[in-house]
Amino acid sequence: MANEYDRLQTLADQRGIFFPAAEIHGSLAGFWDFGHTASNIRRKIVDLWRREVVRRLGSIEMEGCLILPKKVFEASGHLKSFADPLVVCTKCKRSFRADKLLEDVLKTEIPEALSKEKFDEMIKENNVKCPSCGGALGKTDKFNMMMGLTVGPVAEGYNAYLRPETCQSIFASFMKIYKTSRVSLPLPISQVGKSFRNEISPRQSLLRTREFTQMETEIFFNPKNIDDCREFEKVKDYKLRLKLLGEDKVKDVTVAEAYEKKLVSGKSPAYWLYVCQNFFEKCGITREKMRFRELEEDARAFYSKETWDFEVLTSTGWLELVANNYRTDYDLKSHSEVSGTDLSVTENEEKFIPHVWEISIGLDRTFYTTLELALSERDKKPLLSLPRYLAPYDAVILPLVRKDGVDKKAKEAFDLLKLDFDVKYDEKQSIGKRYLIYDALGVPLAVTIDYESLENDDCTIRDRDTAKQRRVKISELPEILRKMRRGEDVF
Amino acid sequence: MANEYDRLQTLADQRGIFFPAAEIHGSLAGFWDFGHTASNIRRKIVDLWRREVVRRLGSIEMEGCLILPKKVFEASGHLKSFADPLVVCTKCKRSFRADKLLEDVLKTEIPEALSKEKFDEMIKENNVKCPSCGGALGKTDKFNMMMGLTVGPVAEGYNAYLRPETCQSIFASFMKIYKTSRVSLPLPISQVGKSFRNEISPRQSLLRTREFTQMETEIFFNPKNIDDCREFEKVKDYKLRLKLLGEDKVKDVTVAEAYEKKLVSGKSPAYWLYVCQNFFEKCGITREKMRFRELEEDARAFYSKETWDFEVLTSTGWLELVANNYRTDYDLKSHSEVSGTDLSVTENEEKFIPHVWEISIGLDRTFYTTLELALSERDKKPLLSLPRYLAPYDAVILPLVRKDGVDKKAKEAFDLLKLDFDVKYDEKQSIGKRYLIYDALGVPLAVTIDYESLENDDCTIRDRDTAKQRRVKISELPEILRKMRRGEDVF
Repeated sequence: MANEYDRLQTLADQRGIFFPAAEIHGSLAGFWDFGHTASNIRRKIVDLWRREVVRRLGSIEMEGCLILPKKVFEASGHLKSFADPLVVCTKCKRSFRADKLLEDVLKTEIPEALSKEKFDEMIKENNVKCPSCGGALGKTDKFNMMMGLTVGPVAEGYNAYLRPETCQSIFASFMKIYKTSRVSLPLPISQVGKSFRNEISPRQSLLRTREFTQMETEIFFNPKNIDDCREFEKVKDYKLRLKLLGEDKVKDVTVAEAYEKKLVSGKSPAYWLYVCQNFFEKCGITREKMRFRELEEDARAFYSKETWDFEVLTSTGWLELVANNYRTDYDLKSHSEVSGTDLSVTENEEKFIPHVWEISIGLDRTFYTTLELALSERDKKPLLSLPRYLAPYDAVILPLVRKDGVDKKAKEAFDLLKLDFDVKYDEKQSIGKRYLIYDALGVPLAVTIDYESLENDDCTIRDRDTAKQRRVKISELPEILRKMRRGEDVF
Repeated sequence: MANEYDRLQTLADQRGIFFPAAEIHGSLAGFWDFGHTASNIRRKIVDLWRREVVRRLGSIEMEGCLILPKKVFEASGHLKSFADPLVVCTKCKRSFRADKLLEDVLKTEIPEALSKEKFDEMIKENNVKCPSCGGALGKTDKFNMMMGLTVGPVAEGYNAYLRPETCQSIFASFMKIYKTSRVSLPLPISQVGKSFRNEISPRQSLLRTREFTQMETEIFFNPKNIDDCREFEKVKDYKLRLKLLGEDKVKDVTVAEAYEKKLVSGKSPAYWLYVCQNFFEKCGITREKMRFRELEEDARAFYSKETWDFEVLTSTGWLELVANNYRTDYDLKSHSEVSGTDLSVTENEEKFIPHVWEISIGLDRTFYTTLELALSERDKKPLLSLPRYLAPYDAVILPLVRKDGVDKKAKEAFDLLKLDFDVKYDEKQSIGKRYLIYDALGVPLAVTIDYESLENDDCTIRDRDTAKQRRVKISELPEILRKMRRGEDVF
């Protein structure tokens, strides 16, 4: 299975899809830059999320600072408890996560929240050594993953931190947004943006990084009204893919059943799971490869009353892309206590602290997974069958040759399209070679300009998925691309 | 003139357009959060930039890390010289920028690059005291504005920094992008993203912050081909607004003249200035309020051969929104030297280090300026006349009353539109009050659902700018909004 993982890494490196940041200066582990194809695909995933999650939920968006004052993380609990178990090799001084080392040796899941002493005991019992040099491991320590900063010219020590999750901006600004957005509860607030964690050992390229992007929605609601859900009826027959506690298999369970059998806390959460799964179906991921894994109490974040990890089957196994958490009133309560600001709301003469349901989607893993599952081979050459609306470019413009005015004509076609569409121009190497390259990058349409084009103002269009070709006028291209965007067949 | 500034601040605070980040926890100066209207407007400014700058230039985009290893900033020179003159009050311990203090007292521009001794001398000569408590000021120090970080569990001291400008990601990854993007020079690479500067005294809300967003394009080109510009002919009669060195007034100078009179380094730079100015015209800023200010050698960044600050006249005076810099081969040369990686390219059998022209646009100032200049009054109430494509919402849906099924009908209309458009639903306060609120937020269309709607499936649409109203079927709304987006008159 590792084959697909390696294949994507190779393609990524060869085509500059993603690569270590500042490689020429000796990169730090866990930091990745995205080239032009990735940057476009990621933007389109965010656009799709905005349509299928943000707008579908009737959510508003906000944009919060990445740097937040220390007190925010006293309130959130991160300064106290956002730590991973760290062991350092006494010989080569390399650092490792104790839970991951033990998982590799024991082939079973190890909770990261065990005590330092418990980790030391397990390392000793199982005679775990440094995987790098075989040396003896030191004592386990708890390493806080917050990245501290000193803001202002006269401050000493850390007075601010990079946020480790986007939702803290939403909680800290909730009351200002609630008071000014003129929306009654339920109020979903969404945000896409960067977060940062000082991971002990980043690994597997985009799957565990120190700088990453989240697409988060926090839905604030009155727990008494958890069953008020306007959209519930419309989607009640939609089948959720649930892996329930204590069961081995994933079951198709309708939204209605999930509610009626009390598998979820109410009608609204059942609908919110639909919104999450529907987004990933639109990313092109097949139902068979997705599931909501219900988490047991000791595997959930301590504040969560109900957690469904949305996972997708990739070459690295089931990979968590989304945490769906019923965070209750934990966040607003703690921010309220630490700040001394009342964060309760009054609606219909009832005063209460809103509860929160969270849909926290990792963009990097979504991007990685979408690519891995879209990547196959045709005649032993890579083919990236992305949905058209996620393709990095709508079309690529290819002059047959780089002379005799053919390239000039191709550049005119490019100019015709460039403002309204994502198009690329490429005149390097043979046409056949270029077709293969843009098949591998998922570009749905190749437009070839040749000698005939000079006389007839026409061109050949070629379909990525079928390799079908047909001749059209250059002036028809805008309408063809518009049709393609609407999902129509243009061949 | 300060009136417009205050008016926007008041509106922003009252409507939650922007506000200090984490206010409930005691915000740090220079950090601002953006609420739903701002978040939408900013996204649309970025979309407009993508069309009018990125795509118009045929640029590709990239997305680089915000955290970069120390060596990047040894190469860029930031660690050595990115410092502002700092003075601290000996009595109240407040910090100030020496150059800004002197500017306030002497009412003239003071170069920030003067020596520490020179600042001390000027402070003494002019008897400058702490503006806050009147106390004596200490000696001037040079304060580096880079925000340092310790990445990894065993590192000591700063081994990484938050980037102070997005372009450093582009320079550090240039070679990887050049080799994999299959584009010959000129190659414009663009990026939108956050940057960070530990400003001594952030002020004027969004105009000088510690965390901000840039929309940058770095155009890599062969200096010998600076006059090769396919688009030059098409725009040669476009009038640039130039404030030339030694002249008081802004002149209209055509793109062709700017080139012919050697006011710019070549045909390409003349075109690039057009691209910049055209974008701001599309933001709705009138030509009379914009200018390119040519910078003298000692006012330019030391690496720049030619600099045009694009400025807009706001209530705070002429405000710099864009730096257009001819950075020559300075950046690639230093990154090459410090990294030991050859960053020269070979094209047409010529080996050379590409030159760079930069169009560095500040999103926060662009956002601020666009709002300030769009804000006026009608009958003493604020009216925000944003271009429709920059409006936070295409339409707002307003039920006349919150009962008798009128609100339900309005929610159905909202559901009809919500996936394809930016729409908002609002049922609070009277219709008249709501019209005023959304006029002030720049929403071009208000849709009112009333008792008649229940019988006829219709609604009243109202134009923000003329307050004209007409009756249409609810089912017509999608087509009306599509027409509006295309710029057609729907009244």
